Amino acid sequence: MRILLVGAGGVGTAITRIAARRSFFDSMVVCDYDLARAEAAVAALGEGESRFAARRVDASDQSAVAALLREERCDVLLNATDPRFVPPLFEAALEAGADYLDMAMSLSSPHPERPYEECGTKLGDGQFARAGAWEEAGRLALVGVGVEPGLSDVFARYAAEELFDEIEEIGVRDGANLTVEGYDFAPSFSIWTTIEECLNPPVVWEKDRGWYTTAPFSEPEVFDFPEGIGPVECVNVEHEEVLLIPRWVDARRVTFKYGLGEEFIETLKTLHKLGLDRTETVGVRGVEVSPRDVVAACLPDPATLGDRMRGKTCAGTWVKGVKDGAPREVYLYHVVDNEWSMAEYGSQAVVWQTAVNPVVALELVADGRWSGAGVLGAEAFDPRPFLELLTAYGSPWGLREQ
Amino acid sequence: MRILLVGAGGVGTAITRIAARRSFFDSMVVCDYDLARAEAAVAALGEGESRFAARRVDASDQSAVAALLREERCDVLLNATDPRFVPPLFEAALEAGADYLDMAMSLSSPHPERPYEECGTKLGDGQFARAGAWEEAGRLALVGVGVEPGLSDVFARYAAEELFDEIEEIGVRDGANLTVEGYDFAPSFSIWTTIEECLNPPVVWEKDRGWYTTAPFSEPEVFDFPEGIGPVECVNVEHEEVLLIPRWVDARRVTFKYGLGEEFIETLKTLHKLGLDRTETVGVRGVEVSPRDVVAACLPDPATLGDRMRGKTCAGTWVKGVKDGAPREVYLYHVVDNEWSMAEYGSQAVVWQTAVNPVVALELVADGRWSGAGVLGAEAFDPRPFLELLTAYGSPWGLREQ
Repeated sequence: MRILLVGAGGVGTAITRIAARRSFFDSMVVCDYDLARAEAAVAALGEGESRFAARRVDASDQSAVAALLREERCDVLLNATDPRFVPPLFEAALEAGADYLDMAMSLSSPHPERPYEECGTKLGDGQFARAGAWEEAGRLALVGVGVEPGLSDVFARYAAEELFDEIEEIGVRDGANLTVEGYDFAPSFSIWTTIEECLNPPVVWEKDRGWYTTAPFSEPEVFDFPEGIGPVECVNVEHEEVLLIPRWVDARRVTFKYGLGEEFIETLKTLHKLGLDRTETVGVRGVEVSPRDVVAACLPDPATLGDRMRGKTCAGTWVKGVKDGAPREVYLYHVVDNEWSMAEYGSQAVVWQTAVNPVVALELVADGRWSGAGVLGAEAFDPRPFLELLTAYGSPWGLREQ
Repeated sequence: MRILLVGAGGVGTAITRIAARRSFFDSMVVCDYDLARAEAAVAALGEGESRFAARRVDASDQSAVAALLREERCDVLLNATDPRFVPPLFEAALEAGADYLDMAMSLSSPHPERPYEECGTKLGDGQFARAGAWEEAGRLALVGVGVEPGLSDVFARYAAEELFDEIEEIGVRDGANLTVEGYDFAPSFSIWTTIEECLNPPVVWEKDRGWYTTAPFSEPEVFDFPEGIGPVECVNVEHEEVLLIPRWVDARRVTFKYGLGEEFIETLKTLHKLGLDRTETVGVRGVEVSPRDVVAACLPDPATLGDRMRGKTCAGTWVKGVKDGAPREVYLYHVVDNEWSMAEYGSQAVVWQTAVNPVVALELVADGRWSGAGVLGAEAFDPRPFLELLTAYGSPWGLREQ
């Protein structure tokens, strides 16, 4: 397998470090808009790693990416960029006859009149609309295969297959007790993506009603996270799981709640009030910039904060339903301790946790245990080998009966 | 008198409208970095106004401004730009042999080790350091002659001359009950300047101690503003009055407090936490921008909000001391009702209130009632004619015994 990895930010760099320990692929071409970032990721792997090479590419330029896929004879494109680059990369892979993986799906746009009640364009709609073309080409677009969406969706499928006869609710819950020394405010994940997901109308799925939206930060709830993280206030946030899981897993309700904490919520509300969350450019003394890009540029790069971070991050899927006639409730989860991921991989916990899953998925695709054509989420596949391989990568998951 | 007005933003435009009704000057050349803004200000005065002309100039380019002063044979430069352009404009006037007026002084920089206890470079230090050169040239730099600083300083001098034998404290207090329809957040004055003054360490003057600083937003106090505005929470803010008044008026303590309100304070704290108050540029996808400029670009231009604004703004000077052996306490103030300033001048209350004062000052300089050489604040001059002329402009002031 020859892989084109697009994006050498925090997640992309962690992907190279995780993949370097595996033998399932022949080459990985690491590319980025900023060649130096790609080169740094490759150089950090050491002299012995001849399977990796660095290239420059503009992820927004579909033809350039397709040309690079052909030139490097890659079988698969792994997208580790901001979600705004999903459409050109997804189309470039199809154009070049390659498979495609991403960790976030094509962006939503709110309903023009009733944004906090009805869906407009949903996350991934742009990709699912092209499912026929992918099926026809016999190629696989494995979408949303990071940790959330991704591992959370594997957990949902696993619960449906092995733990429940009937599922009432699948609620993905994400929380952490991470702190960053020396900064008043330092998000541990891409602020661009965090703003996107937190300020868009959150989406909920119900079997009788279909997908619908609420106001941002709705339905606050305290969830008790495992392994010493403890209780964190979680709120509804727009996330791909809610769009993916109901397509393949039978449940009455699907939600996603994020443990943001009060200070972070207030900060996001202020950015929105001032229009600093906007992605359309504004004119500033003769140049055009996107305010959200400026916010990101003002904050430390989350990928560089690992040394100053302390604590653990948890991603998981809370499932309520019935098994053998009795009510059952479980939380399937995956915890990464920043101290461990820094010591083992030199990557901070949140980006490492995102990065490990597409590498596991690629390995399953490479050896044929996961195969298919079309636009498919992780819950469309057998969850067992994924969970086994994740554990084999040194990163076990847990199950808590509630 | 021939005037070069630099800056055709809200305050500059209001200056043209106020000056157009007065006969003390022969010509006013209105210039701006954006020629269209200068042309719009001149065009709005109507066909009959032949004394005004529009020119383009870059306020940061001292030589270009000096050349324009000479070319237009101007006697005086009136600076209505952001305070960062004070140094080049101040020097351009001296270079071209013109007098100079501004409404905000050269910027401060915090003490490198003890920013919230000691002053570093103070507001206006850069200008006062050049006082000798102005005296030698026999030219007048009348600094800080807007409403605050400016009218507030005239009030302080008036209190010292006519209302008190001995002054305990002079506390400038600024508050408003303005609302802006249709916006979640719409400052009524330049956000660039507001961030500058509110996030810098506030400065306080005490006779026994000299100038010193505190943490931002210190010493909160509720002040009851007149004419129906009512009680507003005020906090210490860095302002020129504290640097100017003690140079010419004898008092034991001088402070400035701004009625910001809780929501505004929280918003400023969030901007600071995220580094969005910074003026140094950051690189954003290949271009360099100042985050604070981006914040300003995202918000509506305060000068355009007059039609949506409701309420009044009040600037004033609270003086406590002794007169004829008895304690006395007065608040000298100036209130502008937005409805009145919009109907009379088409300018919103806050910018109109700032703009009227330098026009009054220019008229006093033109007819010789205010004269001098060097770098002088408004409190260096006789306050009586200023207060009388302000009333004659249709904008009376008030005195409340406390």
